[in-house]
Amino acid sequence: MSDAIDLAEKLASFSEQWAPRTVAEFNGHDVMVARIEGEYHWHAHPDTDDFFLVLKGEIDIELRDRTVHLSEGQMFVIPRDVEHRPVARGEAHILLIEPTGTPNTGDPDTAAPRQVI
Amino acid sequence: MSDAIDLAEKLASFSEQWAPRTVAEFNGHDVMVARIEGEYHWHAHPDTDDFFLVLKGEIDIELRDRTVHLSEGQMFVIPRDVEHRPVARGEAHILLIEPTGTPNTGDPDTAAPRQVI
Repeated sequence: MSDAIDLAEKLASFSEQWAPRTVAEFNGHDVMVARIEGEYHWHAHPDTDDFFLVLKGEIDIELRDRTVHLSEGQMFVIPRDVEHRPVARGEAHILLIEPTGTPNTGDPDTAAPRQVI
Repeated sequence: MSDAIDLAEKLASFSEQWAPRTVAEFNGHDVMVARIEGEYHWHAHPDTDDFFLVLKGEIDIELRDRTVHLSEGQMFVIPRDVEHRPVARGEAHILLIEPTGTPNTGDPDTAAPRQVI
């Protein structure tokens, strides 16, 4: 069993963007931190909701019918199968939770490899 | 579908301690915020891991063999069935994730009622 997990410390250990790092496991899910900046692509996860909490900076989660703006300390759950596109105008740090093995792009062929830190 | 969920704003809307409020649902889990202060009692959850993230203040999660100290921005997952006792010397604010319906005390007879805000 691991000890306290310091999210800022984990984020300081890498600089790559759009490459989530798994910092803990929880009920079959990966708890991940990521640095994101710029526009991602539209995607959906057919089998899982998508948990986002902003730890630093701010992001937009674009949905087909509206945009959800998230600042530090704000969170949002994208229901399964709902198309979305995360956008960060400057670098933002986020906490993500998804079932272990969920492709971050929505497509196993293009997903970032799982990296546990 | 709800909008951005501001965790500090949710916490400011109530003052009761040891009474988690559900702020979102995620893959069959409740995402909750809680104010805690003082010593809880020893308990375990036989069917689920227990996710803790400290949003403000600091807490100890006492385990039978050691204590995990968590400050703001630090998290810990207590594996299912592991006995633990949260302790907060001053009031702390935490984010909790547990399957919907999990008794916070480990015992349905003494659990705080589910409150969605």
